[in-house]
Amino acid sequence: MVLVRHEIGEVLRDIRMSKRQTLRQVAARAAVALGYLSEIERGQKEVSSELLFSIAEALDVSVSQIMREVSDRLAIAEGAHFPDTVPVEFLTSVNPALANR
Amino acid sequence: MVLVRHEIGEVLRDIRMSKRQTLRQVAARAAVALGYLSEIERGQKEVSSELLFSIAEALDVSVSQIMREVSDRLAIAEGAHFPDTVPVEFLTSVNPALANR
Repeated sequence: MVLVRHEIGEVLRDIRMSKRQTLRQVAARAAVALGYLSEIERGQKEVSSELLFSIAEALDVSVSQIMREVSDRLAIAEGAHFPDTVPVEFLTSVNPALANR
Repeated sequence: MVLVRHEIGEVLRDIRMSKRQTLRQVAARAAVALGYLSEIERGQKEVSSELLFSIAEALDVSVSQIMREVSDRLAIAEGAHFPDTVPVEFLTSVNPALANR
């Protein structure tokens, strides 16, 4: 099962690291407990819509940017989790050359 | 404040309607109370990652497809909420014709 909170956590951490911000700095700006923000980043806690908005502001990005990155990573994770669910017939209909392999 | 749960709710409802499914049908397949699913669709309740996965399965779409649509709508909503933050200089650099209006 691909869980949104895992991807949200990773994206928030990656954005924070790329901006060279500490957990403490972002937690203070977003007015959230440091331990709670850490749990969100590790995908252990769901984040409310209001808190996600505050964290986005603290990171100086938009919520849509965060969710766009989340959807991209989810798509990759889904592909990795279900590699065998694409039937050969579909693949060969898209690319007939695959039928010869 | 642009809230993710509002967009998630609208997207889930739009997908369900496009597939001509009733709340009752999707709630049963996702093993969630009908009233709770209705609140999620109306943006009144946050949806857990596990439940979002179940609803996606019940609607026969992937979570990444849902979140992609959510991020697109968030981007539009963010633009609509902050119409005055785009400086005229930017607009005219993109489309010089705007400078003559």
